Amino acid sequence: MDWKHEISAARDRIAPHIRRTPVLSATGFGLDYPVALKLEQMQHTGSFKARGAFNTLLSQPVPEAGLVAASGGNHGAAVAYAATRLGHRARIYVPEIAGPAKIALIRDQGAELQIVPGTYAEAAARAAEWRDATGAMDIHAYDAPATNAGQGTCMAEWEDQGLEADTVLIAVGGGGLIAGAMAWLNGRRKVVAVEPETSCALHAALQAGAPVDVQVSGVAANALGARRIGTACFELAQAQAIESVLVPDSAITAAQHALWRDMRQLVEPAGATALAALMSGAYRPAPGETVAVLICGGNIAPDPLQG
Amino acid sequence: MDWKHEISAARDRIAPHIRRTPVLSATGFGLDYPVALKLEQMQHTGSFKARGAFNTLLSQPVPEAGLVAASGGNHGAAVAYAATRLGHRARIYVPEIAGPAKIALIRDQGAELQIVPGTYAEAAARAAEWRDATGAMDIHAYDAPATNAGQGTCMAEWEDQGLEADTVLIAVGGGGLIAGAMAWLNGRRKVVAVEPETSCALHAALQAGAPVDVQVSGVAANALGARRIGTACFELAQAQAIESVLVPDSAITAAQHALWRDMRQLVEPAGATALAALMSGAYRPAPGETVAVLICGGNIAPDPLQG
Repeated sequence: MDWKHEISAARDRIAPHIRRTPVLSATGFGLDYPVALKLEQMQHTGSFKARGAFNTLLSQPVPEAGLVAASGGNHGAAVAYAATRLGHRARIYVPEIAGPAKIALIRDQGAELQIVPGTYAEAAARAAEWRDATGAMDIHAYDAPATNAGQGTCMAEWEDQGLEADTVLIAVGGGGLIAGAMAWLNGRRKVVAVEPETSCALHAALQAGAPVDVQVSGVAANALGARRIGTACFELAQAQAIESVLVPDSAITAAQHALWRDMRQLVEPAGATALAALMSGAYRPAPGETVAVLICGGNIAPDPLQG
Repeated sequence: MDWKHEISAARDRIAPHIRRTPVLSATGFGLDYPVALKLEQMQHTGSFKARGAFNTLLSQPVPEAGLVAASGGNHGAAVAYAATRLGHRARIYVPEIAGPAKIALIRDQGAELQIVPGTYAEAAARAAEWRDATGAMDIHAYDAPATNAGQGTCMAEWEDQGLEADTVLIAVGGGGLIAGAMAWLNGRRKVVAVEPETSCALHAALQAGAPVDVQVSGVAANALGARRIGTACFELAQAQAIESVLVPDSAITAAQHALWRDMRQLVEPAGATALAALMSGAYRPAPGETVAVLICGGNIAPDPLQG
């Protein structure tokens, strides 16, 4: 895969549809050094996922039946948003346990919402039935080249905005975002993968030498709780020998509070996970090493203005 | 007053202490044109007020007794933060009615907090007693040259970040922020003053031809509810013949919701007031006119992570 070419093409393709999210350098968070931040939670639908969704829809034929996805969260919202904007149907099967805030988020994007009693597995089964019956396109949440190339535009954009850090910390769920970042950077900067202790599919895969199934739980599980790491992510992480660190839920919650207290950014637990690695000391920069943290999602529940 | 010189000097003076807040161009908010935004609510203590506080403390001798202020909100937090950072004492008299979130915000900055039963008037009386007894410095919230020059650095910074808009919309309370902006721009861009219908000291002054006392109430009153517009603000607004528009509370609340829904920025009502002028049509750009909105404060109550 010529990732540089794929990500550059994705960047041009999705540029009219995505938001160029802001960056800044900030002190605070109890750290004695500044941190470069990119506020990707300000992307359309509140996470980086819109990048991969647009790139997928714009790089291949979309069937008359449109899109289908099973998701109770950021992926479903992004697919619904991108499909609606581009004039395609989108049917999203949402597990009832996703909760009213996430369900409202997906509904607001204009999708045909199907609320499925039970867990994600039932929603996924219903989505597969619909796909098989209609020919609708099923977009994987993180393990597809067009998705990874789309997410890679986030790091390309950050470099275009003048990123200077030696090291970039990125939260990992299924690995779509960090795969895109590793693919774009190709070793030019150090990448640190940050996972919750209780949802660590990449960490487990790197230890086992191959993707393995893991149990997932914890405060960030609804966004980072992938049971198995994506193939491209695993291969890039292994080839580049990136550093993988884990953080406890308490550190994620502390980082979430610090982002509000010190910078008035209210993010979901997944969005605070990379910063948690610095605040907790799970990752300690060497003297003189400059660091950057990607804030990846802001879809907190309950809705702070409704709850 | 040579405002260009004063604001340039303030910018150099406060640079090590303030955050260079991010800017972006964004679509959304139900508008069919993009809006340039500056996220000044990400400033230390959650509003632009830190700029004026630092400039005041760094441009004149500070007495041994330190600072004193009466404030239940953003000014008190900024004075406390700047004083503590620069090694001065700060005693802030907070009216009990400010509520627990604002009181906690001020306490967190390391000030000597004095909670005063009753309203702002009682807190102000106690602050004056302390000033007279100790010689502590009393910083006005909006009507002093060093404060206005400090707030003016916000617009100077925005231009340095590449602001291209024809017109800038700014919320007005006592007028410190917009005074600094008018002073810096000196007519180079159109400035639109946005006030709540129920707290409109500038609008009333422009109609009367001189500053007059007004009644204040409404959702943004705790930040924008100045009873009388600042002198410099009035004089600059009259001399530059800027446009003054009013928005109802319902428009402010709608803009606050839109900032969260479309961009995951949770701000206080005052911080959404300038955007409300566009969303409500209180200000309608001419064809081809490009617009910018300054987001000025994020200290929402109650604290969204405490409930």
